Amino acid sequence: MSDTAIQTLKNMLAHLDDAKKYQSLRDVMETLNAPDLAAVFEDLPQEKMPVLFRLMPKDLAAEVFAELSPETQEALIQGLSDRELKLVIDELFVDDATDLVEEMPASVVKRILAQAAPDTRKMINELLKYPEDSAGGVMTTEFMELRPDMTVRQAMDAIRKNGIDKETINNCYVTNADRTLVGVVSLRSLVLEKDEDRRIDDFMDTNVVSVTTSTDQEQTSHLFEKYGLLAVPVVDGEKRLVGIVTVDDAISILQDEADEDIAKMSAMAPTDKPYFRRSMWDLYKSRAPWLLFLMVSATFSSMVIRSYEDALAAVTVLTAYIPMLTDTGGNAGSQSTSTIIRGIALGEIHGRDLPRVLWREFRIAILCGGTLAICNFVKLLVFDHIAVPVAAVVCLTLVLTVLISQLLGTLLPVTANRIGIDPAVMASPLITTIVDTTTLLVYFNIARVILHL
Amino acid sequence: MSDTAIQTLKNMLAHLDDAKKYQSLRDVMETLNAPDLAAVFEDLPQEKMPVLFRLMPKDLAAEVFAELSPETQEALIQGLSDRELKLVIDELFVDDATDLVEEMPASVVKRILAQAAPDTRKMINELLKYPEDSAGGVMTTEFMELRPDMTVRQAMDAIRKNGIDKETINNCYVTNADRTLVGVVSLRSLVLEKDEDRRIDDFMDTNVVSVTTSTDQEQTSHLFEKYGLLAVPVVDGEKRLVGIVTVDDAISILQDEADEDIAKMSAMAPTDKPYFRRSMWDLYKSRAPWLLFLMVSATFSSMVIRSYEDALAAVTVLTAYIPMLTDTGGNAGSQSTSTIIRGIALGEIHGRDLPRVLWREFRIAILCGGTLAICNFVKLLVFDHIAVPVAAVVCLTLVLTVLISQLLGTLLPVTANRIGIDPAVMASPLITTIVDTTTLLVYFNIARVILHL
Repeated sequence: MSDTAIQTLKNMLAHLDDAKKYQSLRDVMETLNAPDLAAVFEDLPQEKMPVLFRLMPKDLAAEVFAELSPETQEALIQGLSDRELKLVIDELFVDDATDLVEEMPASVVKRILAQAAPDTRKMINELLKYPEDSAGGVMTTEFMELRPDMTVRQAMDAIRKNGIDKETINNCYVTNADRTLVGVVSLRSLVLEKDEDRRIDDFMDTNVVSVTTSTDQEQTSHLFEKYGLLAVPVVDGEKRLVGIVTVDDAISILQDEADEDIAKMSAMAPTDKPYFRRSMWDLYKSRAPWLLFLMVSATFSSMVIRSYEDALAAVTVLTAYIPMLTDTGGNAGSQSTSTIIRGIALGEIHGRDLPRVLWREFRIAILCGGTLAICNFVKLLVFDHIAVPVAAVVCLTLVLTVLISQLLGTLLPVTANRIGIDPAVMASPLITTIVDTTTLLVYFNIARVILHL
Repeated sequence: MSDTAIQTLKNMLAHLDDAKKYQSLRDVMETLNAPDLAAVFEDLPQEKMPVLFRLMPKDLAAEVFAELSPETQEALIQGLSDRELKLVIDELFVDDATDLVEEMPASVVKRILAQAAPDTRKMINELLKYPEDSAGGVMTTEFMELRPDMTVRQAMDAIRKNGIDKETINNCYVTNADRTLVGVVSLRSLVLEKDEDRRIDDFMDTNVVSVTTSTDQEQTSHLFEKYGLLAVPVVDGEKRLVGIVTVDDAISILQDEADEDIAKMSAMAPTDKPYFRRSMWDLYKSRAPWLLFLMVSATFSSMVIRSYEDALAAVTVLTAYIPMLTDTGGNAGSQSTSTIIRGIALGEIHGRDLPRVLWREFRIAILCGGTLAICNFVKLLVFDHIAVPVAAVVCLTLVLTVLISQLLGTLLPVTANRIGIDPAVMASPLITTIVDTTTLLVYFNIARVILHL
């Protein structure tokens, strides 16, 4: 739904609420999707929230609640009675309830855990043990479990009996008595199976793609893309099935990861809030430190220029090409570095590929640098009317700059990754700053030799 | 599966093949996932492909085939008899078959269409009519359709009868006799429904999120993220259901989109091939034109510097801060521009928000620029021992540069979007080049006024 539609909806709900037309209000809300209703709640004054919230049927209410931002969840909880809060917690899937506990301040967490049913509380505490960015941290424990010796009929009975509480039953997981994962069977294949007495282990898929609780959440999400999955089972150290990660969570993780990479490539600290939800202070905090750090790093380029002031004074035209050279170096470095960063993130490039990657980037750099140098040489002579030796200095620098930049742009993220630093910190802005200094050093040294300064 | 595992597997299959142990080869292949087997096929010599391919059961063979790169598909097709090709096409989902027809050269397409069953051929021709990047272009026509007046029992019978050929039956779509979409019902809710005589229209979800055939594929994919869907129905101009887009396709589209944004932000033409599959020529073609274009654009900054050569000669120390100032401008511009580009892509920012966005970016820019200027002023006086008027020139330029850069970084992508150009072309590299020139103009003009040059 677009912003305008949300706005119209908000006005409509406000009018119905003011006129106390609660039945119509309820009817209207039931026709809407949870994410759209959540968008309306985000902008509601705090005192209006509980009234509207109470009007929704409890499953819809829980769905809307799970979609709210932590700030709005907190505001809404303050307006709910303990009994109402209990109803919401009961309806929430346990992974959403765990996220809630992770986001709320201590006093609210205490209220939530006090209202949760004992087994929900146990599952939440179980899930809280895993790091937030691991498969264990994002999984849900509400999956459908079957036994290998069940027949199709028994399996369908089990699903009808227990399926209602599960986050998904499209895939059911087959485990032994000791809970080790032995196979997966889709609801589709159960429904389509003609022989109701056929045993599950006769046609289940035993070749299950699974992860462990400690697998990184991004690595887990890439499996969905690679294998076209709807859910991935999560096993513990003893291969026992402890949870599943579903495709909707995987999509959010993949999108957050891409946003994070893009933020880092643009000299910003990553954030997961939409643009208009960020405060001035949020935006300032994510931008100013990086600008400051990069500005201070640029000190080296100033130092290089100041130590070659005499050369510049002798051939002042050299100054004119400084931005062009440093920009080209920065662009060439960004190309390599973002190719490598994305390759590492998608699992296409590994540490041991370094020699192979360097050799590729070396050849590309020579080709690109050569093309630029030739075009630029012609331009400098024909349009800028520069003397041949000066043009030679600029163009030789171009080739070397592209070469050094693309090699540094390859080496730095791979090295960062090897020593356990996120390769994305080596993204464009930092590479640009590093490359500036090397470009200037190359430029002035070539000038010194060719122009005898 | 990691590259090393693929390598081990390849050696194993090669050995079994050389020893003509075909039964073991078949057994081994059946334990593997289609994407992993596809990775093995990618590196196989062409003459080995048909032998291995024939050994697989036909449904696995079709799955593997759909995962192959177009080059490998073409090579494999050349080794298959017409009868074998027919078997593959029959097993392929119609959206994968359509992709195949779109990618193959004309002679191969002719063979494929000749072997396809008449109704498959009709569906392929139907799908080929839609633009490749629209919902119509990525949808499949193999969905499960139900009628509103069916009972649960009738619906389950229909699914058992026709479900096997459908790409997914986890969601079934409810249509009227004229095929207008009226609701959606999940296989889950059908299975869990206790009353087998209950009519579908009594509990189906009538609030269906759908798209039209012409909806952009990226917009379609964002709906999966927003609403947590497994499939989205696609309707034509008369609201008749013509196909569905499934979540696995949506994930690929979202990832390709992120890759595309990252490529454009790093001055590269986007590509959808993994790093090591790209040839030297591919890499060169995606990088050199952008480097060249940006290099030529940098001509303006050279022109500015050359026209202020006298001022620079008079106060040579000004040169030393050129890279720092242009880099900071570039970084500040990138921050705004990538925030805006991503905001537009995710549907958070629209054209009419421009005044609001500009006002936010204006305030952030003043805050960031102010912070930088103060820090830099102290640094210039204490560490660089620069005269106060020169330091003032540098720091005033800093504030103005950050301001102009962030405003341009906001204005350009929004404007591009308004006039129908992809806002991502305004990403970091181009902004950096544009901002260089404005930074230098500001710098020299402030210097002229304050230092009376």
